Amino acid sequence: MIAELICVGTELLMGQVLNTNAHFIAKELAPSGVDMYHQIVVGDNPKRLTEAVETALSRADVVLLSGGLGPTDDDLTKETVAKALGKELVLFDDEWEKLKYWFSSRGRAIAPNNKKQAMFPADAIILENPNGTAPGCIMEADGKAAVLMPGPPRELMPMFKNLVLPWLLEKAGHRLYSREIRIFGMGESDVTYRLDELIKHQTNPTIAPYAKTGEVTLRVTARCRDDAEGEALVLPVIETIRATLGDVVYDTNGRELAEVCHHALIESGRTLAVSESCTGGRLADAFINYPGSSAYFIEGDVTYSNDAKMRRLGVRKETLDTVGAVSEECAREMAEGTRKAANTDYALSTTGYAGPDGGEPDKPVGTVFIALASEDGTIVKRLNLFGDRDRIRHAAMLNALDLLRRNICTK
Amino acid sequence: MIAELICVGTELLMGQVLNTNAHFIAKELAPSGVDMYHQIVVGDNPKRLTEAVETALSRADVVLLSGGLGPTDDDLTKETVAKALGKELVLFDDEWEKLKYWFSSRGRAIAPNNKKQAMFPADAIILENPNGTAPGCIMEADGKAAVLMPGPPRELMPMFKNLVLPWLLEKAGHRLYSREIRIFGMGESDVTYRLDELIKHQTNPTIAPYAKTGEVTLRVTARCRDDAEGEALVLPVIETIRATLGDVVYDTNGRELAEVCHHALIESGRTLAVSESCTGGRLADAFINYPGSSAYFIEGDVTYSNDAKMRRLGVRKETLDTVGAVSEECAREMAEGTRKAANTDYALSTTGYAGPDGGEPDKPVGTVFIALASEDGTIVKRLNLFGDRDRIRHAAMLNALDLLRRNICTK
Repeated sequence: MIAELICVGTELLMGQVLNTNAHFIAKELAPSGVDMYHQIVVGDNPKRLTEAVETALSRADVVLLSGGLGPTDDDLTKETVAKALGKELVLFDDEWEKLKYWFSSRGRAIAPNNKKQAMFPADAIILENPNGTAPGCIMEADGKAAVLMPGPPRELMPMFKNLVLPWLLEKAGHRLYSREIRIFGMGESDVTYRLDELIKHQTNPTIAPYAKTGEVTLRVTARCRDDAEGEALVLPVIETIRATLGDVVYDTNGRELAEVCHHALIESGRTLAVSESCTGGRLADAFINYPGSSAYFIEGDVTYSNDAKMRRLGVRKETLDTVGAVSEECAREMAEGTRKAANTDYALSTTGYAGPDGGEPDKPVGTVFIALASEDGTIVKRLNLFGDRDRIRHAAMLNALDLLRRNICTK
Repeated sequence: MIAELICVGTELLMGQVLNTNAHFIAKELAPSGVDMYHQIVVGDNPKRLTEAVETALSRADVVLLSGGLGPTDDDLTKETVAKALGKELVLFDDEWEKLKYWFSSRGRAIAPNNKKQAMFPADAIILENPNGTAPGCIMEADGKAAVLMPGPPRELMPMFKNLVLPWLLEKAGHRLYSREIRIFGMGESDVTYRLDELIKHQTNPTIAPYAKTGEVTLRVTARCRDDAEGEALVLPVIETIRATLGDVVYDTNGRELAEVCHHALIESGRTLAVSESCTGGRLADAFINYPGSSAYFIEGDVTYSNDAKMRRLGVRKETLDTVGAVSEECAREMAEGTRKAANTDYALSTTGYAGPDGGEPDKPVGTVFIALASEDGTIVKRLNLFGDRDRIRHAAMLNALDLLRRNICTK
C-alpha cells in the first residue's frame, strides 16, 4: 500500500510554522509497511491543491492531508478533495449539534461559518477531534482513499495515532508493536556499526535509529496480529541489542535518562541533592520536571561563583587557590559539601569550562568534572566535551545523570 | 520570481529527520519577494527525483534542492538534475584539491568515492561549504536555475543565508533589511489584533509574527537598496509597534528575555541570586547559558523541599505552617533570604504548583508566586498559568525574567 502526504497551509510556505506533522506522520508510518514516496506542501489555493490531490491519487492508494479544515473562507481542503473525488458535502446533524455544544459549553457564540465544519460527503467516515472544533474524515472512491486531518499538531497527532493509523493497519491487515531502546555513552555511528548485521537483515521487526544531542534511540517495531505476538518478535531483538551494546543501554521502554533516575530514586527511597557550577541549574531542572520529584529532591545549589562554593558547600579556599574551581578536588568537595548540608543519600556535582572563553592549557573549554557522593564514598569523573556552550552544558548534565544511573540502578 | 523547494532524502520520508531545512528556507525567502508555492520531499530515487525536478522546472523559475550531495551511491541529486538540464558533470580540479586537503588536514584518508563531490557541470556556479565536504552549486539553463545544497542543516543554513539568498536577491534586484521585535506578556492573537491595520496594509516592510511558548516575535523586513535605506524603512514601523503595544516590547534586536536581563545586569554592574521552587533550576540555567554570567550571577538555590527553604533561605516555619510554600509570603521570604545570604543587589524567587497533581481550592495547579527583592524593597506577583508541567514551569521562569527586566532596565 502506498500513501502520499499533502500538507495544506500558506503558513508552511511562508515559514511561520515548522512542519512537525510531516515528521510525525512519517515516523509513525515508517514501520507500518505502508510506503510513502512523496510529501507535498501547498498553500490554501484551490487550483494548486486540486492538482496536488489529483497527482497524489494517480500514484498512491491513500492520500493523507493535513490542514484547511477550519471555519474560514481560506479553509477549503474538504471542498476541494470532495470535488476531486466527485462527492457532495451535506450537513451531518450530529456533528453540528456537537459543534454547537462545544461552543456553548465554553460560553462562546458559534459563528454561521462554523457550519461548514459539520459538512462531509454522505458516505464519509468521521474522525472525532477531542482537541478542537474540526473533525477529520475519510473519503473513499474507486479503491482509493483520502484522509483529511486538522492542521494544528495537537489535534492532528492524537487523531493520526488513535484513529488513522489503526484504520490504515486494518486495511493493510496487521498491527504494530513498538519498543524504544535508549542509549547513552555511545554515538549513533558506533551504535549502527556494532548493530550493522542486525540492521542490514531486519525485516520484521524493523530497527530505526534516532539521534538527539548526546543520546541515541533505537525504535524496534514489529508487524503482528496482536501485542503478544509483537512482544514475542521484539524481545529477542532487544536482548541481542542489549548483549551487543552492553550497559550503555539504559532503558528499553523509551524513558529519558532523567526519568530512569527519577524512578530509581523513588523506588529505592533514597534522597538527592545537587550542586552545579557549569550546568547552572539544568541538572536540578531535569529532575524537577517530573511530578513527584519532591519525594527525593531535597535541594539544589547553583554555586556559580567561588564565593558561593565556599559559603554554601564548604569548598576549601586552598582548593580554589591551588587547583582551581575546575578540578577533580573541587567537584569532590562540592558533592560532599552538598550531601552533608542537605543530609541526603546521594549528591551530584558539576564544574567545568563551558566556553566559549576560558579554559587552561591542560583543561581546555569542554573540560568538566562531575562527582557523585554517597555512603560508599565519592566517584569523580573527568569529561572532555565538545561543541558550543549549550551543548557542553547539556552533555555535562546527561553525564551526571548517567553517573547516578549506573550507581543507583545496580543496587 | 517563483521558487520551488525539493528536499531529497529517504530519511525525511521515514521520519528519521525533521525537515528544518524547509522551514528555514521558507522563513528566509518569505520577505524576499520570491514566491514559493510548492515544497516537495522525495527519496533518493532517480526516477521520482527526475519527475519532481521536471515538474518543478515547468512551474517555477528557480528550483531549490537540499540533500543528496554526499559521496555514496545513494547520493544522486547532482547527477539527476544535471541530466534533466542536459548537462555533463566534469571534474573541477580546484574543488578536488580542496577536498583532499580537507581530509588530509583532519588526518583522514579520502575515499575514491569522494571524487564525485568535486564534479559539476562546466558552467556551474560553485557554492563553497565551509562546514562539510559537499560544495553546493547553481546550474542555469533556458532562463531557469537549479540551486543544489547539502542536506545537513548546519551546512545548508549558512550556505543559503550567505550565498543563495544574496544570489536570489541580486536576480530579483534588491536586498533585505530585517529586525526582530520581541514581546512578552501579550498573546499572538492580541498582538496581531492590535496591529491589524498595520499588518493588513503592509507592503514594504513586511511584518511577520512568530509565536513560541509564552512569547511573540515580530520580524519586520524591508526590501531595499542598502542597509541605510532598509533601516529608514523599518525604524518608523518599529516605533509604531512600540507605541501601539507599549512595554510588553522588550527588545527590537531579536534578543531573548534572559539575554536582555543578562546585558542589563552586566551594564549596571549589579549582582543577582535566585531561589527556585517550582522552576527548579530553570531560572538559573537561563542566565548561566550566556557566557560572562559569572560577572553577576552569585548563586542559585533550588529549594524544592520545605526543609531547604528554611535551612538555606531562612523562610519561617510559621509561614510554611500557616499559608504554605505556595504563597506571597513564602515567595517574599525566599527572595529576601537569598538576597541576604548571597549579599546581592537583586534576588528572584519562584514558588508554585506546576502540577499535574497538587494545588488547593483557591490556588489550583498553575498558581505561581514570583518575587524580586532589591534595595528598594520586594515586589511579589501572583501568576495564574495554564498548560502541562513543563509549560507552567517555563512560563513561571519567563515571568520572573520579565519582572527583573521591568525593574532593572528602567533605572
